Amino acid sequence: MDVPALPDVPVRAVLELLAVVVGAMSGALAAVRKQFDLFGILVLAWAAGLGGGVLRDVLIGAVPPVGISDGRLMAAALVGGLVMYFGHPRLERARRMILVLDAGALALFAVVGTVKGLEYGATPLAAVVVGVLTGIGGGMLRDLLTGEVPVVLHQRQLYAVPALLGSIAMAVLWHADQRGAVALTAVAAGVFALRVAALRFRLNAPGPWRGTGPSSGR
Amino acid sequence: MDVPALPDVPVRAVLELLAVVVGAMSGALAAVRKQFDLFGILVLAWAAGLGGGVLRDVLIGAVPPVGISDGRLMAAALVGGLVMYFGHPRLERARRMILVLDAGALALFAVVGTVKGLEYGATPLAAVVVGVLTGIGGGMLRDLLTGEVPVVLHQRQLYAVPALLGSIAMAVLWHADQRGAVALTAVAAGVFALRVAALRFRLNAPGPWRGTGPSSGR
Amino acid sequence: MDVPALPDVPVRAVLELLAVVVGAMSGALAAVRKQFDLFGILVLAWAAGLGGGVLRDVLIGAVPPVGISDGRLMAAALVGGLVMYFGHPRLERARRMILVLDAGALALFAVVGTVKGLEYGATPLAAVVVGVLTGIGGGMLRDLLTGEVPVVLHQRQLYAVPALLGSIAMAVLWHADQRGAVALTAVAAGVFALRVAALRFRLNAPGPWRGTGPSSGR
Repeated sequence: MDVPALPDVPVRAVLELLAVVVGAMSGALAAVRKQFDLFGILVLAWAAGLGGGVLRDVLIGAVPPVGISDGRLMAAALVGGLVMYFGHPRLERARRMILVLDAGALALFAVVGTVKGLEYGATPLAAVVVGVLTGIGGGMLRDLLTGEVPVVLHQRQLYAVPALLGSIAMAVLWHADQRGAVALTAVAAGVFALRVAALRFRLNAPGPWRGTGPSSGR
Repeated sequence: MDVPALPDVPVRAVLELLAVVVGAMSGALAAVRKQFDLFGILVLAWAAGLGGGVLRDVLIGAVPPVGISDGRLMAAALVGGLVMYFGHPRLERARRMILVLDAGALALFAVVGTVKGLEYGATPLAAVVVGVLTGIGGGMLRDLLTGEVPVVLHQRQLYAVPALLGSIAMAVLWHADQRGAVALTAVAAGVFALRVAALRFRLNAPGPWRGTGPSSGR
Repeated sequence: MDVPALPDVPVRAVLELLAVVVGAMSGALAAVRKQFDLFGILVLAWAAGLGGGVLRDVLIGAVPPVGISDGRLMAAALVGGLVMYFGHPRLERARRMILVLDAGALALFAVVGTVKGLEYGATPLAAVVVGVLTGIGGGMLRDLLTGEVPVVLHQRQLYAVPALLGSIAMAVLWHADQRGAVALTAVAAGVFALRVAALRFRLNAPGPWRGTGPSSGR
């Protein structure tokens, strides 16, 4: 795969903005369902779209986090929030499409988050942690702020695992000096494909261990 | 308005301590209602009185935050917590007075938080975010630690909006080199007046959008 | 008490790893009870075992926190999580043993957290706060992520108070230049003893104040 015609930074920036919009839409939808007011809806849009990156930046010392200082990212969260605010009666029916877009956001956040951690000199282990956190942290904040147990922790269906595998792959490639657009795109595509497959084929993580005795049949 | 006789720093410091006491009282009251023990009551006093500033300081890199290292601020939170601990049967009846004092705390925190963000070199956008967070973050922590959805996100009645307008005004004035006691006092007074007006005249933020169709009548 | 034969660092490191394992087990158990999936169980193990230290490190500016960058600590949290994942039907019956181990973890975290705060130049007050937070923060995160009000805030039975007294004692000893293994061990032993005594003799912190009138009889 050869992509010399595509300049690296703009593509990455555009995709990241799109990921923020999609994340923000999920936050705004959760807030609409809880009857939050307009301010609360926009805060949830911000938290779901940019909260994972804010946690990452605080953990690696990149303060103030881009999630509160970058005007384009904030605008993307605002757009996502307003789109859902005005469009939610129709957008709720587009649930399937939103799940697919969210898979793309997960993939991008995990890859971009891991790379940023490595760029800030984090250990590979810490970079993987903040990569996964960039992918799932926004959704966790969304759930906590709406009074729910974070769905990523108990939903079974693979969500964090694709992000984790992608972050590990990205950290390995980085240390093998594969840091270009091709490497990032390939890993993000893999995370996206795995997440979509989990949705399509209902791939589940195991629940609590029930032992091997006769009572474990259920 | 000319206030040359009032030295800037002591007035700001005294008002900030008063704001912490009031915030701490709201946290302690929430904890008393949830039957927390004395330690929990004092933790909630600390979280509600100083939590917004701690979030601000972590986001702008001013660590350790003053909310855990400044003895006078900690003492103010402790005083607010103990006043509510011993006085809550009587103070619950003074609900109206506490709401007005809380409006003052909101105003002071928003202005002081925005200025501190700007002093630490944050972008105007980030300074506004941390200013609002200084104003509303303590109450959000209070609600999360007592198992409630943050009231600021769904209560309708204007609370965050005055803080947001005040933070924006403060950031604009700051960049116009209006950084003295007069500018700070004027903005804080405006936030306070707007919040009290919201209480008095039941000014509400809009709830979820219901579209313009016939089914939106409810 | 003379302990020249015991090298300081390895003992401290081994005890800290053991404390992380015990904390992680309490997080994994809470997650198992909430029917979390395997990923959620391991996240809760991490949060309960290392979350207090992560909060401490963010507050004192020691980023990235050791709780996401130190492979041995992460491995200890993973071990604790897996032990509880596979062993929970049997380990639930060992509740008393786990409570005693947890008392040891509380003692170690409080002492080690206070010392790290002081080493990073925090004021004595801030060092005491982060010391207590190292001890109780993991459990608070565990409770928040499983949708519970933090038990340390309302359970009455002394838990945070031993950590608080130990952190204060450690800060005083530190400033008296008593920073060796003997001082750390003595304070940790005191915290452990006080916590075990609270368990054994049901020592409680006071609940909400009910005044002195006739209605306060209950």
